[in-house]
Amino acid sequence: MAVSQTNLAWTTLLDVGPSERGRRRLHDRLAHALRTAIRDDRLAEGAALPPSRALAEELGYSRWVVTEAYGQLIAEGYLSARVGSATRVSWTPDTSPDTAPPPRAPARPPIRYDLAPGLPDLRAFPRRRWADAVRAVTGSAVHYDLGLPDPTGHAALRTTVAQYLRRSRGADAHAASVSVSVCAGVTDGLVRTCRALRAEGIADVAVEDPGWGRLRDAATSAGLRVHPVPVDHDGLRVDDLARTPARAVIVGAAHQFPTGTVLSPARRARLVRWAREVDGFVIEDDYDAEFRYDHHPVAVMQGMDPSRVFLLGSVSKTLSPALGLGWLVAPAVMTPALRATNLVAAAPPVLDQLALATFIDRGWYDAHLRAARRRFRSRRDLLVRTLGAQVPEGRVASTAAGLHILLHLPDGADTRGAVKAAAAAGLRLADLDDYRAKRSAERGLVLGYGNISDTDIPPAVALLRQALRSTVPRPRPNAD
Amino acid sequence: MAVSQTNLAWTTLLDVGPSERGRRRLHDRLAHALRTAIRDDRLAEGAALPPSRALAEELGYSRWVVTEAYGQLIAEGYLSARVGSATRVSWTPDTSPDTAPPPRAPARPPIRYDLAPGLPDLRAFPRRRWADAVRAVTGSAVHYDLGLPDPTGHAALRTTVAQYLRRSRGADAHAASVSVSVCAGVTDGLVRTCRALRAEGIADVAVEDPGWGRLRDAATSAGLRVHPVPVDHDGLRVDDLARTPARAVIVGAAHQFPTGTVLSPARRARLVRWAREVDGFVIEDDYDAEFRYDHHPVAVMQGMDPSRVFLLGSVSKTLSPALGLGWLVAPAVMTPALRATNLVAAAPPVLDQLALATFIDRGWYDAHLRAARRRFRSRRDLLVRTLGAQVPEGRVASTAAGLHILLHLPDGADTRGAVKAAAAAGLRLADLDDYRAKRSAERGLVLGYGNISDTDIPPAVALLRQALRSTVPRPRPNAD
Repeated sequence: MAVSQTNLAWTTLLDVGPSERGRRRLHDRLAHALRTAIRDDRLAEGAALPPSRALAEELGYSRWVVTEAYGQLIAEGYLSARVGSATRVSWTPDTSPDTAPPPRAPARPPIRYDLAPGLPDLRAFPRRRWADAVRAVTGSAVHYDLGLPDPTGHAALRTTVAQYLRRSRGADAHAASVSVSVCAGVTDGLVRTCRALRAEGIADVAVEDPGWGRLRDAATSAGLRVHPVPVDHDGLRVDDLARTPARAVIVGAAHQFPTGTVLSPARRARLVRWAREVDGFVIEDDYDAEFRYDHHPVAVMQGMDPSRVFLLGSVSKTLSPALGLGWLVAPAVMTPALRATNLVAAAPPVLDQLALATFIDRGWYDAHLRAARRRFRSRRDLLVRTLGAQVPEGRVASTAAGLHILLHLPDGADTRGAVKAAAAAGLRLADLDDYRAKRSAERGLVLGYGNISDTDIPPAVALLRQALRSTVPRPRPNAD
Repeated sequence: MAVSQTNLAWTTLLDVGPSERGRRRLHDRLAHALRTAIRDDRLAEGAALPPSRALAEELGYSRWVVTEAYGQLIAEGYLSARVGSATRVSWTPDTSPDTAPPPRAPARPPIRYDLAPGLPDLRAFPRRRWADAVRAVTGSAVHYDLGLPDPTGHAALRTTVAQYLRRSRGADAHAASVSVSVCAGVTDGLVRTCRALRAEGIADVAVEDPGWGRLRDAATSAGLRVHPVPVDHDGLRVDDLARTPARAVIVGAAHQFPTGTVLSPARRARLVRWAREVDGFVIEDDYDAEFRYDHHPVAVMQGMDPSRVFLLGSVSKTLSPALGLGWLVAPAVMTPALRATNLVAAAPPVLDQLALATFIDRGWYDAHLRAARRRFRSRRDLLVRTLGAQVPEGRVASTAAGLHILLHLPDGADTRGAVKAAAAAGLRLADLDDYRAKRSAERGLVLGYGNISDTDIPPAVALLRQALRSTVPRPRPNAD
C-alpha cells in the first residue's frame, strides 16, 4: 500500500491549509507548503520529489497545480529539475544558533503617572481637525505632489512655515537670505545642520550643560567634537564658550532644557557677536518657545543675524512627536552643504507636510496653541501649588515657559534613589543629573506637566513626596 | 514744528500696518515694526528712541502699548535701557554680502511626457481609501500612540508587514528569528543597514553594475567602500563578487534595476552560500517585485536564509514615493547594531504607519496591486508594440516585471544626445549609461511606463523616435 502510505506522508508533510483570506490560489498554497517544509529541514537537500502527476493524484489536485508550484520553487532556487531526472530539493536551511532572538528587556512596572519631561498633552491632540486637513489635501493635491518629494520639503509648507515664523517667532525667514526646509523634527534638523557644518570644515560644536543628551548625540553622530559649556541664570555662559575651540553652538534661547533659563538680552547679543568673531554659527533650538506664560514669547535670535543663526523647530511639543514634522531655517550660504545631506535624509511624507500647511493656514494651529497655553498655565500653577504644599524642601524654578519645571532639592538629596523608588510605585520622574555632562553638587528633578491630567497631579505629587521621603535615612527610633 | 516732523518720521519709519488676520495685538505689531527697522539698519545701533510717552502720543497709542513693545525688544536684545537714560538701539545687523542667495538653477523646458523610470501611476493613487485609513486611525489611535514613537516602527504595522511579506513575498518574517522594522523607504533602510554593518566591522559592500546610483551613494555615506560587480542575463555574477573583498552585497533579485534581470535559481542559491562562506550578508532590495507579468512573483531570497539576508521594501513603487513608508527585515543578530542607528533616524509618522497597517489589513493594498498589475501589463504591451513599430532598430528587454523596460540600441547610438534632444522637446528619458559604474559599449535607454498615461504613449514614442533620428548623422543629399 505504498500509495496510501505516501499519501499519508505528503499530506502530513505539506500543510497546504485552508484558503487564507480566500485569495491565495491552490498552487501558491502548495508552493508555500513545500517552501516551508524545505526551510524547516523537513525536506532535506537532495531529496527527490514525486513526479508532478503522482503528487497531484495523491493530494487530489490537478497536475497543473503541482507543476506550477514546482516551477515557482525552481525559479526561487529551492528545487532543481533536470530533464529525465526527478525534481530535487536544492537548498539547505541554516540551523546555526545565531538565528536566536536577542534577550528581551525585563518587564517594567506599569507607569500610572508620567511627570517626565518631553511630551505635550496627547489627550488634547486635535484629532478631528488633523484628519480633516489630511483628507482635504489628499483630495486636492496635484498628481505631481505624489511623485518624488522635494528633499527640502514641499514649497507650500516651506512658505507657510516661513510666514508663521515671521509672524509668531519674529524670525527673518525671507526666502532670499535664508533657506527654509522641512525636516522630521529638531534631531533630524540638527543632524543635517551638523553634517553641513562638518562639510564646511567646522569640527567643534558647543552644547549647553546641563542639556538634552540627544542633541549631543546628534552632533557626535555627525562627526563633530562636542564641548559642554555651563548654563547659569542668564543662560549659556558666552565667556566660557569663547574659551572652547568651538565655532558653532547649540542653544535653547527661549527656554533652555532642562534649566528653563531664558537667555538674557545681553547674552543674546553677545552670542551672535561671538559667532561673527569666530566666523561660526549659532544653532537655535526653539524649544518650548510657544508656551511662555509671564510675557509675550521672546522672538528668536535668528532674526538678529540670519547669516549666523540656524533656527530649528518642530510640532513635537505643540501637537505630537508622532507627527514627525519640523523645520530648519539656515543661512543661505549653507544651502549647498545642506542639500548634500539630503541624499540620505528623506523629507517627511508629502501629505503630512501639506496637511500641516493647511492646518496652519486655516488658523487651527494658532487656535490650538492659544488653548494649550491656557491649559498649561493653569496646570503649571496647580503643580507648583501642590509641590509647595507637599514638598516644602524643594524650590521650584523654570516656570516662566515651556512644559516642565525644575524642582531644586537640598544638596545631598538622593534624586537617583527617588527616581527609582517612584518608578517602582508607578510614577515616572527625571533626574536633573541625567542631563549633565559634568558632575555637580546641585540636586534636582525635572518635572514635565505636558502629558499629565490635572486630576492626576495631586496623587502624582503624593507619590513623589513618598519617593523623596523613602530615600532620606530616618532617625532610628530609640529602643524603648 | 519738531513734534510734527518727528511724528512724520516715526510713522514713516515704523510700518505698523493694518491688523494681520485680526489676531496680532497692537504692541506686537509695534515691536515687529521696530525690530524690522533695526534689522534693516534704518535704526542704527546707539540711536535713542523717544520716551514711551512721547512715541505713544505721536503714534496715537496708549503708553502701555509702547512700553510693552520696548520691553519685548529689550528682552530680545535689540534695545537696551538704563535708568535715567534713553532707550537705545543695541544691535547692528550684518550687511556683509554672504547673506546673498545662491545662484538659481536655469529654467528647464517643461516636461510633457515622462518616460524616466522610478514612479508608479500617480493618477491611480487610491486617494479616498488612503484618506479613509488616515481618518480611521486618527480617531482610533490610543493616546500613547501620539507620544514618542518607537524608532523601529509601530508594532501594529510591523506585524501587518510581517504577515504581508510572509503571505505575498514568501519571506521568513517571524518575529523571533528576524527583526522587522519600519523605515522611510529603501534608501533609509539601506543607510541603516550599512551603518549597522559598518559597526559590526564590515567595511566593503558590493553593488550591481549597472545599478541604481542612490544605493551606491547610501552605502558610501555610511562609510562603506563600494565594489561594482557586473550583471549578466542571469543577474549578479557571483564569481566576480567572490573576487572582491566585500562581505555584503546589495542585490535586486526580483527585477534588477535597470537591466530587469531576474536572478536565476542557481545564482540565488549560490549567492546565499557565498554569504555563509564569507560570514557576510545579502541585502535584498525587493524592487518592483510586486509587478511580475509572466509568472507568479518569485519569492524573496530572504526566506532561504533569514540569518544572512536583509530584505528591503517600500510602497514607493506600489502606492507613492510621497508616502515615505518602507520596511527592513533583518537577521535578529543585527538588532542591537540596527537599534544604535535609530538615534539619528526617526521612524515615519505614526499615523501614517497605522494608516498603512489599516490599508493592508482591510485588503485595500492587495486590491490596489491587482488592479495596478493589470493596468501596467496592458500599458507595457502598448509600449512594446509602439516601440516595435516606431523604433525598429531597438531591442526591447526587461519586460517580465516591474515598471520599466530596457531599450537596447545599436552600438554607437548617441543615447546621451538623444536624451538631450528629447528633453528639449518635452520628453524625459534615462540613459542606461547613467546607471553604470564602468563604461560599456552597450547602448540603451531605460524607459519607465509607470507614470505615463496610455494615450500619451504614442506621442511620447514619436518624440523618442525623432530624438534618436536627430542624433544620427543623415547622409547628405546629392547636390542634384
